[in-house]
Amino acid sequence: MSIKGMLIVISGPSGSGKGTVVNELRKNEMYALSVSMTTRLPRLNEKDSVDYFFRTKEEFLKIREADGFLEHAEFVGNMYGTPKSYVEEKINEGKAVILEIDVIGALQVKKIFNECILIFLIPPTKEILRERLIGRNTEDAIVIERRLKKAEDEITQIDNYDYLIINDKVLNAVNQISCIVSAERLKPKNCKLKVKEFIGGE
Amino acid sequence: MSIKGMLIVISGPSGSGKGTVVNELRKNEMYALSVSMTTRLPRLNEKDSVDYFFRTKEEFLKIREADGFLEHAEFVGNMYGTPKSYVEEKINEGKAVILEIDVIGALQVKKIFNECILIFLIPPTKEILRERLIGRNTEDAIVIERRLKKAEDEITQIDNYDYLIINDKVLNAVNQISCIVSAERLKPKNCKLKVKEFIGGE
Repeated sequence: MSIKGMLIVISGPSGSGKGTVVNELRKNEMYALSVSMTTRLPRLNEKDSVDYFFRTKEEFLKIREADGFLEHAEFVGNMYGTPKSYVEEKINEGKAVILEIDVIGALQVKKIFNECILIFLIPPTKEILRERLIGRNTEDAIVIERRLKKAEDEITQIDNYDYLIINDKVLNAVNQISCIVSAERLKPKNCKLKVKEFIGGE
Repeated sequence: MSIKGMLIVISGPSGSGKGTVVNELRKNEMYALSVSMTTRLPRLNEKDSVDYFFRTKEEFLKIREADGFLEHAEFVGNMYGTPKSYVEEKINEGKAVILEIDVIGALQVKKIFNECILIFLIPPTKEILRERLIGRNTEDAIVIERRLKKAEDEITQIDNYDYLIINDKVLNAVNQISCIVSAERLKPKNCKLKVKEFIGGE
């Protein structure tokens, strides 16, 4: 395997458009989406090993005991986690594995898996973010203001991230992420094989 | 100035094709070539401030005294150096300034200007490098073997570099360098203004 796999963690406020960007990225087979594990029951149309790994609480806790998660959290009584084994399997296949996760989770992952690349995605301005959230027509004014406040809090963590992307157009953001992956693959620590090929190649 | 300027130092063995790559890059106005200062006399067709800054030994030493060089060296009785002021001026214009220099010089520059990006360029294999050197028809077998040995010595310094590029095709190498510049511009330390625009943008 000469193409170096890696873990790309993408965070960004609600309304930053990260879902759209990730959907665009997954069309390219150089990427693989990380699949989370959960103890909640599957919804209609949700498939095991595709949308989530659906597991019992006992199974989940056993994996957690064995340090089998990159990060995990509880939400409304259900447990969610990113299984290390799946991410490692895809990295070994040479994929850029994408994990879409909030800032707290991202920093947890970075601690365990220092080689991962943290990308933060924001719209060009807070005003544009507000317009996008209003445009959704699904949340009231108080929730929107709370989300804007959270976005502003999260951006103070930007120095813990490796890259910041201004999501003005989806295609620009996608191209910038591809550039980041290409550049990361050119770092000497990811090129040991190429150096060997150079020296030994005669 | 919203586009972040930077210094790109490119090294690589004789025969790595770095001259061709640099000539290709300079066609794009996002790049600027660093101009060296020298005490040697101009050759026919060489222009001051374009090919070199031609200066007297006294002028050169005065600048050296004032710490005005990123690196400097003496070669066959003449002095050569990279003036800080010119590089800084171009960086302030938002350019990616290219400095083509050997490993010793590159590491000197990195010490003084830690933010610079070090790129090492090699052909895919040593055998290809040998063929290129033989193909030039300008050097005898002993010189060629010496150059190959030097290339092998230099590659042991690769961990001090930020990126390694395998120059299989000039256009690939040029695209990879452009990707590196784009990715570097997305690092949070280079995005302070964008973060301000996001927060203050309403």
